Amino acid sequence: MSIAGHDPRSPGSGMPAFLRACRGERVRPAPVWMMRQAGRYLPEYRKLRARHHFLDLCKTPELAAEVTLQPVRRFSVDAAILFSDILIPLEPMGVGLRFEPGPILERPIRTEQAIASLRPLDAEEPCGFVMEAIRMLRRELGVPLIGFCGAPFTLAAYLAEGGGRAKASFDSIVRMMYERPELAERLLAILSDAMAEYLGAQVRAGAQAAMIFDSWAGILGPEFYARFALPAVQRIIARLPAERGPVIYFVLGGAHLLEKIAESDADVIGIDWRTSLSGARMRLAGGRVTALQGNLDPRALYAPEETLRREVRRVLREGAGGGHVFNLGHGILPDTSLASAERLVDLVHTLSMEEEAS
Amino acid sequence: MSIAGHDPRSPGSGMPAFLRACRGERVRPAPVWMMRQAGRYLPEYRKLRARHHFLDLCKTPELAAEVTLQPVRRFSVDAAILFSDILIPLEPMGVGLRFEPGPILERPIRTEQAIASLRPLDAEEPCGFVMEAIRMLRRELGVPLIGFCGAPFTLAAYLAEGGGRAKASFDSIVRMMYERPELAERLLAILSDAMAEYLGAQVRAGAQAAMIFDSWAGILGPEFYARFALPAVQRIIARLPAERGPVIYFVLGGAHLLEKIAESDADVIGIDWRTSLSGARMRLAGGRVTALQGNLDPRALYAPEETLRREVRRVLREGAGGGHVFNLGHGILPDTSLASAERLVDLVHTLSMEEEAS
Repeated sequence: MSIAGHDPRSPGSGMPAFLRACRGERVRPAPVWMMRQAGRYLPEYRKLRARHHFLDLCKTPELAAEVTLQPVRRFSVDAAILFSDILIPLEPMGVGLRFEPGPILERPIRTEQAIASLRPLDAEEPCGFVMEAIRMLRRELGVPLIGFCGAPFTLAAYLAEGGGRAKASFDSIVRMMYERPELAERLLAILSDAMAEYLGAQVRAGAQAAMIFDSWAGILGPEFYARFALPAVQRIIARLPAERGPVIYFVLGGAHLLEKIAESDADVIGIDWRTSLSGARMRLAGGRVTALQGNLDPRALYAPEETLRREVRRVLREGAGGGHVFNLGHGILPDTSLASAERLVDLVHTLSMEEEAS
Repeated sequence: MSIAGHDPRSPGSGMPAFLRACRGERVRPAPVWMMRQAGRYLPEYRKLRARHHFLDLCKTPELAAEVTLQPVRRFSVDAAILFSDILIPLEPMGVGLRFEPGPILERPIRTEQAIASLRPLDAEEPCGFVMEAIRMLRRELGVPLIGFCGAPFTLAAYLAEGGGRAKASFDSIVRMMYERPELAERLLAILSDAMAEYLGAQVRAGAQAAMIFDSWAGILGPEFYARFALPAVQRIIARLPAERGPVIYFVLGGAHLLEKIAESDADVIGIDWRTSLSGARMRLAGGRVTALQGNLDPRALYAPEETLRREVRRVLREGAGGGHVFNLGHGILPDTSLASAERLVDLVHTLSMEEEAS
């Protein structure tokens, strides 16, 4: 605890800071969590990982829950995110998957036949091990738990590229959009249905917020984004159970798409480190967005304390025009020091108490 | 020749279409060339490449000139770009380089010592083999020849990452900017000086236009871009010989930086497929930019003819508000069909004659 009296886990404080900020409230101290906060920069994670394959960590509820809890025990973060991978639900759909250590999908899904071979996810409880981990976590956690899934376009990009290490250019899915747009739409519809089931099941299991990661939609121009990627996300959000908490939608490298992203029906938009939160907020206005999440460059955690402090102040100032959940603009990097991660969380809590609204 | 009377190689037509468009003139038929037009999608290139290492193609003037000419012989493109690689001038600066087939730099340049070990380029004629290829090409070519170099930030990103396959995230150079900004500035200044010499020598050898590729500056937010990457480009442009032709500056994924890119002092700004040319032109207004270059998605070349035609029309329409050199928004892909590449060039020439100014 860096600030006397700040305890996001305190049951007396009503709705947790993270959820209040998601609803658009100005919350002080500002809530903060870090994308990939459960991961390789933590020695306790590396220790577990030395004994278990990555996929086994994801698929064993006790282990997934343990890894999810690790950063929450160490830092005063205001939310936890389920430890898993966006590709996990593709396996029960019939796609072989391994990590060495980057993801490798066994076969490409590019043809009519390959797309038809995809199995729908079990509507009852797809990936039961994930739901079990969520139920275990809700018994342990004192901060809200975020469930998540990959956005259909991003999953389709991996699937179309399959059969080898994915290239960051993801030409195959864009090629499909130009060559056989109706096939691309079919693939996206299948993935959208599956992710609606999967994320909905997470909400029913107890996830208090739901995040949709569109890690590759930034490779699209606004026309293709609006035609293919965006409706697939809207369709997931429309089908989530009524008891859902806030939906957070994050497009990496999506600065050029913000006016379209505003139409996603998500409550909170994740912003990467390349766009100022104040500029993003203006471009998202008009939609139903209640808050922004982001956006410190994760590489700022390598900086001397003085620089980190300046950057945290800047992000707080740029985020001050409305609901703001402090986060990194991308996942925390594996060689980040523990001291720096801890300092970040404390700086956000401390400095946000000093900040004036802008 | 797709259009009667259109011959960019005709000496009778005064200044070539490409150069007139770079100056901001509305030129019809619209000039077109394709990034990476000398490359793997051409069978005659693959044939040569089967007998020579990539670096040998770059470093043997006769071979580099031959490869540069290949697309010009096959298609009615309005400009040729020297066949080479942005990393070529790093070798004489003391950095071991190989391609397998992606670029691998022998050692990382991250420390004070490593930066001090970089040798300045020979001011007389750095990379003489490149200048020899340019002189040979000027004797052969009927269209303008574009020389090029990498922008200092992009080269620094490769150098800092060195010692293995570069990761697309290029954390090392951004880390340096946060940890030791003065070191990053020193590295950029050295590269800026070297590229000014190198690109200047290309102009003196006969290159009629000069293109600066900032392939990775898009990973930066506007503040770091303006502080580190932009001044290094301005410094190159300021030092080019007075007889230089237009300078084209291309930042891949730079949509969020356009207002800063406007200050680069380049004449022509390359735009990738993610931003409409009309939107980009508005955001670049106020600077000294005379023309835009781009921006058909290279994956549109996989599309059926009808789709390609629609996309070419769209790019022509969006580019019609000022000087426009038609190009792809990124390099042509290795598995693009020859028929499609040829169709593109012809469509640009034909459809631009029908287009009304917008």
